[in-house]
Amino acid sequence: MNITIWNEFRHERSKPEVAEIYPNGIHTALADGLALLLPAATIETATLDEPQHGLTQERLDNTDVMLWWGHAAHDEVDDGVVAAVQQRVWEGMGLIPLHSAHASKIFQRLMGTGCMLRWREAGEMERLWVVDPSHPIVNGLGVECITLPETEMYGEFFDIPQPDSVVFISWFAGGEVFRSGCTFSRGKGKVFYFRPGHETHPIYHNEQILRVIANACCWAAPNDAPYTKEARSIV
Amino acid sequence: MNITIWNEFRHERSKPEVAEIYPNGIHTALADGLALLLPAATIETATLDEPQHGLTQERLDNTDVMLWWGHAAHDEVDDGVVAAVQQRVWEGMGLIPLHSAHASKIFQRLMGTGCMLRWREAGEMERLWVVDPSHPIVNGLGVECITLPETEMYGEFFDIPQPDSVVFISWFAGGEVFRSGCTFSRGKGKVFYFRPGHETHPIYHNEQILRVIANACCWAAPNDAPYTKEARSIV
Amino acid sequence: MNITIWNEFRHERSKPEVAEIYPNGIHTALADGLALLLPAATIETATLDEPQHGLTQERLDNTDVMLWWGHAAHDEVDDGVVAAVQQRVWEGMGLIPLHSAHASKIFQRLMGTGCMLRWREAGEMERLWVVDPSHPIVNGLGVECITLPETEMYGEFFDIPQPDSVVFISWFAGGEVFRSGCTFSRGKGKVFYFRPGHETHPIYHNEQILRVIANACCWAAPNDAPYTKEARSIV
Amino acid sequence: MNITIWNEFRHERSKPEVAEIYPNGIHTALADGLALLLPAATIETATLDEPQHGLTQERLDNTDVMLWWGHAAHDEVDDGVVAAVQQRVWEGMGLIPLHSAHASKIFQRLMGTGCMLRWREAGEMERLWVVDPSHPIVNGLGVECITLPETEMYGEFFDIPQPDSVVFISWFAGGEVFRSGCTFSRGKGKVFYFRPGHETHPIYHNEQILRVIANACCWAAPNDAPYTKEARSIV
Repeated sequence: MNITIWNEFRHERSKPEVAEIYPNGIHTALADGLALLLPAATIETATLDEPQHGLTQERLDNTDVMLWWGHAAHDEVDDGVVAAVQQRVWEGMGLIPLHSAHASKIFQRLMGTGCMLRWREAGEMERLWVVDPSHPIVNGLGVECITLPETEMYGEFFDIPQPDSVVFISWFAGGEVFRSGCTFSRGKGKVFYFRPGHETHPIYHNEQILRVIANACCWAAPNDAPYTKEARSIV
Repeated sequence: MNITIWNEFRHERSKPEVAEIYPNGIHTALADGLALLLPAATIETATLDEPQHGLTQERLDNTDVMLWWGHAAHDEVDDGVVAAVQQRVWEGMGLIPLHSAHASKIFQRLMGTGCMLRWREAGEMERLWVVDPSHPIVNGLGVECITLPETEMYGEFFDIPQPDSVVFISWFAGGEVFRSGCTFSRGKGKVFYFRPGHETHPIYHNEQILRVIANACCWAAPNDAPYTKEARSIV
Repeated sequence: MNITIWNEFRHERSKPEVAEIYPNGIHTALADGLALLLPAATIETATLDEPQHGLTQERLDNTDVMLWWGHAAHDEVDDGVVAAVQQRVWEGMGLIPLHSAHASKIFQRLMGTGCMLRWREAGEMERLWVVDPSHPIVNGLGVECITLPETEMYGEFFDIPQPDSVVFISWFAGGEVFRSGCTFSRGKGKVFYFRPGHETHPIYHNEQILRVIANACCWAAPNDAPYTKEARSIV
Repeated sequence: MNITIWNEFRHERSKPEVAEIYPNGIHTALADGLALLLPAATIETATLDEPQHGLTQERLDNTDVMLWWGHAAHDEVDDGVVAAVQQRVWEGMGLIPLHSAHASKIFQRLMGTGCMLRWREAGEMERLWVVDPSHPIVNGLGVECITLPETEMYGEFFDIPQPDSVVFISWFAGGEVFRSGCTFSRGKGKVFYFRPGHETHPIYHNEQILRVIANACCWAAPNDAPYTKEARSIV
């Protein structure tokens, strides 16, 4: 399995409090964490400020599952690159948009909705409840609820299409709920939106969060069924 | 539209604190509340201790939508009556199981799962967030969130099949979430499980709760499409 | 209820065989048919070659449900108009893309997929089987299956997200099947894709087809629940 | 993975034309076919006329995925055994009801509906179209459509709850369609109903059919997430 972790990689270079948590970037922390859980996977990274955002067609063609973290610079992502990623999802590449990637171009285009939500930065407690224990994404998790002591809040209404499955629903100390783990299929590709990951908290050092993301990679990897995305006239 | 409100009607007669809130029974409070919102509907009630639990075949045949409130005496409901109600749902009758009816025979049989959950009686605050604003059940609600200052807690994992739509997700002060408004279709019938309604709190005097239930009645009323529940051999 | 019927309106002016079936355009045939079934509705039409395709912001703001028929000129529809229609769907406007509108910009943008399919023009028989008899869209239909003696074939794989409900599945004499009636929610809006309607066959003069479209208008009309499409910070 | 193949095993002993196709029973043909595709699996069989139908609690507790084929003797299956199988599904055991098992007690209880359909024995052609190419159940299938030259017809309306995913839709030469491959979750367990398998046709010798069933076993095998089926009071 070839995994490409894409990261905006701006906050880590401009904000000391983020650099302290992720000195080599969120992408590197994720790569290190996943490498332990998926020793057979090939894991590479790509970032916004590389040429073509690090996402050449060759890279895309060789990627089975892509993670996507973006926040402050969604608009700087080239439309052509977004279209190429969307094509690859349709052809079978798994996509795992993380946290503030709810507002990324690629997620919005795949959903067809605005993908907005309510939010509050208060460092409050979040509890992610498992509401689909049959789903392979919770395999090996060992708990009915993941607790994050301090994080940013995301609240409903989360403006997404009805998910194929809602795996996690979050509770926030301040009074909100959120569909935090949602699956979607688009073409032959599988998408798992996963909420945790605010840059000012060490979320991607949490073993349970990494376990969920590793499981999601396995779940989202493409099968080899035929898929034709063009219209085809037959007689 | 003919609505039949079924109530176990035991707590109101044995517990003074419940009788204080519902002196004529939960079914009567619901009937009075719905009559104001649905003036064209014919609303009748039936209770456990009536002969055949008040649910003769004739009554069932004339019911478009049935509300069901039960709690302490699920096991006393006759299996034949449950089977007759299930048949009517398949034929198109809407069913709205309320609160502790999650553990009723009729709901369990229609779901095919155990329908259990976690719970706590602590008189804590609940907030019901709308997560499907496109659904007719939230029409006229006017708020993004219904707040109940004091109620019993129900928490996930709620052991139900994946709903057709999750309309409400609840937040509880103590740390839990719950899929509080869920739709299902079974045969030609529509089912809306709605969580609020603990007998020691005046939930069914709340205008927003009554509005949701009235909307659910309209949504669940049967259409006149053909439906055949028998296997049929054709040549 | 204000209904706007949008039509590309090219085939009817350039192809005599189409003009014979729809001398005043598909939009007019639909308007006449729906007027009989929905006498209380206000029905207007708009076409591609009008300024702004007939879809001013004022028109959009006053539309509850929009029908969309396009085929040969999807690319000529202005991106700004498409974006405005998409916004209105998110805010609650119902949208009913018909037949070859599967490849329209507006449908593709709302789905997030390519929306392609296989097809064959052979004037063969289609049977649309009802697979969700609980849905209000089949109300009053009176049959378990709509038969169209001659039409164009559309076959799977139809490249759409998993629908909220599949109401009709089509059988074609040549060996294909197709999810012909599919519902989706997007933001506060409801979408019903309905397959029948090839321009060289008198599909929109068929009473059962018109009944389904009229029902879909009623189902897709917006409720008045709150909906906020912007991200909102709360404290 | 421990697979238990349950078979009614009556037709093969009473009807020569069935015995010719399945001389050692449908269960043995399935076991032989799956053994080639899943060499690491432990595959056992059980039949109706064994004590306790071959389904002791110990056997159930050791089964990860169960296949179920029944037709003429659904009523002879003991209710206690059915309840024990249902409990195991809730706890995570995968269940794959095949063909006429649509009318088995276990499938009806898990669905909550009547599960009836229309049918015709005419030895006509069936084509199973893949409508969810993203699903692992079609992995390695290599075709967009499985063709069975001669089989029994099953037609809609198939009286089941809305599936989590419809993987296959069948076309029949005589004019019907059918949702032939449907997934459901119940508790922690996964269910895949798969239509092909009439006893008078050599369906379970077909390599593509066996591939689908083998994939379904892998998909339905339980994860190790926590699951509690009892109500639990918490403080």
